[in-house]
Amino acid sequence: MEKKVLIYDTTLRDGTQAEGITVSVEDKLRIAEKLADFGVHYIEGGWPSSNPKDMEFFQEAKKLNLKNTKLTAFGMARRASLKVENDPQIQDLIKAETPAITIFGKSWDLHVTEALKTTLEKNLEMIYDSILYLKKYTDEVIFDAEHFFDGYKANPEYAIKVLKVAEEAGADFLVLCDTNGGTLPNEVENIFKAVKEAGIKSKLGIHAHNDSDTAVWNSIVAVLNGAVQVHGTINGFGERCGNANLCSIIPNLSLKLGYETVTRENIKKLKEVSNFVADIVNMPVPKNMPYVGDSAFAHKGGVHASAVLKTPRSYEHILPEEVGNKRKILVSDLAGKSNIIYKARELGIEIDEKDERIAKIVQEIKRLENEGYHFEAAEASLEILIRKHLEGIKNYFDLDAYRVLIARRYTDKSPISEATVRIKIDNDYEHTASLGNGPVNALDRALKKALINKYPSLAEVELIDYKVRIVNETGGTAAKIRVLIESRDKEKKWGTVGVSDNIIEASWQAVVDSLIYKLIKDGV
Amino acid sequence: MEKKVLIYDTTLRDGTQAEGITVSVEDKLRIAEKLADFGVHYIEGGWPSSNPKDMEFFQEAKKLNLKNTKLTAFGMARRASLKVENDPQIQDLIKAETPAITIFGKSWDLHVTEALKTTLEKNLEMIYDSILYLKKYTDEVIFDAEHFFDGYKANPEYAIKVLKVAEEAGADFLVLCDTNGGTLPNEVENIFKAVKEAGIKSKLGIHAHNDSDTAVWNSIVAVLNGAVQVHGTINGFGERCGNANLCSIIPNLSLKLGYETVTRENIKKLKEVSNFVADIVNMPVPKNMPYVGDSAFAHKGGVHASAVLKTPRSYEHILPEEVGNKRKILVSDLAGKSNIIYKARELGIEIDEKDERIAKIVQEIKRLENEGYHFEAAEASLEILIRKHLEGIKNYFDLDAYRVLIARRYTDKSPISEATVRIKIDNDYEHTASLGNGPVNALDRALKKALINKYPSLAEVELIDYKVRIVNETGGTAAKIRVLIESRDKEKKWGTVGVSDNIIEASWQAVVDSLIYKLIKDGV
Repeated sequence: MEKKVLIYDTTLRDGTQAEGITVSVEDKLRIAEKLADFGVHYIEGGWPSSNPKDMEFFQEAKKLNLKNTKLTAFGMARRASLKVENDPQIQDLIKAETPAITIFGKSWDLHVTEALKTTLEKNLEMIYDSILYLKKYTDEVIFDAEHFFDGYKANPEYAIKVLKVAEEAGADFLVLCDTNGGTLPNEVENIFKAVKEAGIKSKLGIHAHNDSDTAVWNSIVAVLNGAVQVHGTINGFGERCGNANLCSIIPNLSLKLGYETVTRENIKKLKEVSNFVADIVNMPVPKNMPYVGDSAFAHKGGVHASAVLKTPRSYEHILPEEVGNKRKILVSDLAGKSNIIYKARELGIEIDEKDERIAKIVQEIKRLENEGYHFEAAEASLEILIRKHLEGIKNYFDLDAYRVLIARRYTDKSPISEATVRIKIDNDYEHTASLGNGPVNALDRALKKALINKYPSLAEVELIDYKVRIVNETGGTAAKIRVLIESRDKEKKWGTVGVSDNIIEASWQAVVDSLIYKLIKDGV
Repeated sequence: MEKKVLIYDTTLRDGTQAEGITVSVEDKLRIAEKLADFGVHYIEGGWPSSNPKDMEFFQEAKKLNLKNTKLTAFGMARRASLKVENDPQIQDLIKAETPAITIFGKSWDLHVTEALKTTLEKNLEMIYDSILYLKKYTDEVIFDAEHFFDGYKANPEYAIKVLKVAEEAGADFLVLCDTNGGTLPNEVENIFKAVKEAGIKSKLGIHAHNDSDTAVWNSIVAVLNGAVQVHGTINGFGERCGNANLCSIIPNLSLKLGYETVTRENIKKLKEVSNFVADIVNMPVPKNMPYVGDSAFAHKGGVHASAVLKTPRSYEHILPEEVGNKRKILVSDLAGKSNIIYKARELGIEIDEKDERIAKIVQEIKRLENEGYHFEAAEASLEILIRKHLEGIKNYFDLDAYRVLIARRYTDKSPISEATVRIKIDNDYEHTASLGNGPVNALDRALKKALINKYPSLAEVELIDYKVRIVNETGGTAAKIRVLIESRDKEKKWGTVGVSDNIIEASWQAVVDSLIYKLIKDGV
């Protein structure tokens, strides 16, 4: 029998505290549906009285089918100066009409006296009143003991008293919060044990932040010591260093430690959920993020690559499919034939292991890598190269000429950039000009202008990242330059590469590859 | 008495396995110097026989002053088919002439039979021979037991036997490696205990990868169970999900658990080291990275902000200054000012702490950093800025205009680049033109041509590295661009920075700073 751990997602509340994240009501509704579909047990939707958007969310959320997931509204214990039934913030929690309500109360004496400016005794009353009152209006009340670990270290008697009062008032879960994120796993373990020893009988939860880079294990060690509810966010989004990352906690608990969290079948959607939330809040998933990052199962080098294919468990801690991720064979210096065969099959091209074109591709990649090309972050350029050798590629256009001019006078704050492009499509010439923010932008615009009539879908392509490096350091600005460009359309992102002793030419190559990739992808 | 933990940095070897990272010999030398300055105990410099670049690094590194840091060369135990003295890979390790050598050997039976295709017995001999032999040529041999945790779980007797053999051969440290990164801290703890119980007496180390999002605590739990050497990388760079992040491990061990790692004083440089390495390898530090990220101590305004100021410990797990980071809500006059005073004194400028020009410099730096400037790897630009405020700088020349043209016809292999520069020196105009390998090179040459009669020493300046990054990645080629240039003359190297929405203008700024720095340096 697997022991069950309840996953409590606070992406929509604590997660949106992250620097740079702002979400609309519509965004929140879409994320809530996705999370319910994924099978988390609780979704903390927001703090109804903190802003009208959160209240609107709760009104709209009533129309959603959130399956077996419980929506919770978040708030705080009543204010010192008000009776609970007169506290508008408490009333707003009731208006959200959620099956569970989560309120936090102070459990660190310093915060009671310094931040709330009230007495330790009064703080206990505020917590007691609020829980008792809210229990009449909702099925479950979850109590977040804010700053519990710091509070326990400063004044253990008082911190425990806060839990006891919440327990007596009827809280369904007592959640120990590491609000400042400074607690290490050995302390979490000791303090969970102390809480049990102090006679707390309620179901316990953990709410960890990642300031010490240990939030994932802080959460799990709490589970190993009796916690049955884990708070966290998708991709670990959250203020400062983020909340505990559910995308790591869920597979660690379920795939490695034998706990039941969301179903095995749904864990296969983990990467999809991670990407979905990242796209909605417009914060990319770092490539190296455990389990869900694009590089999480990336392997370099020939010998290694062939070994992975033969015996995956010898180089992978889990099978990437278990979390909906993919093995990625990086074609680098050490490129071997097995890498290319693997890539070709990924592209849906069946190829015999003895096909002599494979050796030619390997040779070509080696030659290009010697010149400074790098295909690891430029899968789209690699795909074009492989398709060129194995299937051939349509001749979408020919360059006749381009020209870029950058000029600045002392009176200008920044220079003007102008590009002209002349290309041949089906025996017709297109000759266009454009200004731009910088020479590459000008060139990109002029080229798109020249192509757009014939290939209208190119309007969807957006350049989202641009990186430049000197490949051979000894020559300074006279050395070879590698440009990596990342592009996207509505569906996906892709990387392309160009190398030249001229930065404009290298950029041109990467831009051209990006557009050609788009056309191939769309089947034009 | 604090217990000492030896910090073993493998940024230059394992760290460079990260997807998207490639470093030049020059990059590696600069990072090695920075790490030695920071005070890590070991720097694993590379695998000499894996490529000529790594061998060149070890040759060049002999000229560096690495203070008390030991450089180590990395390699593997001898091949099954060769005698140790005939194995070229082993001979290359000796040629590196480092005070310590690290070799790995297989400790998972599966890998011995499947990857090495040899017998379990023979593998033991390979490890024994290699350590015994290398001990004659270097002070210390460190043995990395590859896949130790997976190996122990599969065949504990054999895994222990591997350690015993390495111990008997005279290895100075036995490092237990979680090569696939799948091990959780509870297993690390149990297996370290088992190794001790099995009678292993050698000093132990830990080498963790972050695939389970627990590498930091895996490393620390190993220390709590007897490990005295911790392997990791700056910013956790490394393949797949990265190596254990030293930027989290060091402050956790030293600031929270009472261990001695690098000195408290040097831990204050943690953020600087993190940014330096990130800039050199051209991979940004995620904002939410614990301790060193820009948002690690960011507080959302209002009441919270003033509370933080009054009682920092109520909202922060450590003081940001302890790791050289900054609280983000306010103008942190103090941290900034003392930094500038320190820098000014380094430049030989005595300045009173109350001098109001210091606040102006801090303000100016903040403004520039907001625009995307980054001074960690651009000390020369920072020096110019400080001197400008405190001493004034001679007006070496004024720009009247520059113009760059890049043009390519379909017959050309690469475009031509032509730059013209018109500048005013002492009321005379110099108007020059030059071709170049690329626009920046053309501009650099035209500018030097215009200045050389008046300032002949500029002929000595050579641009040796050139890096470009988008500062705000959402805008693609229309976003702000940061250019870092590294220059040198016969005596030293220096870095300069420029930022603009135009790559040519950003490069121009960095080139101009580089030449002005040279003139100041030479006392012209």
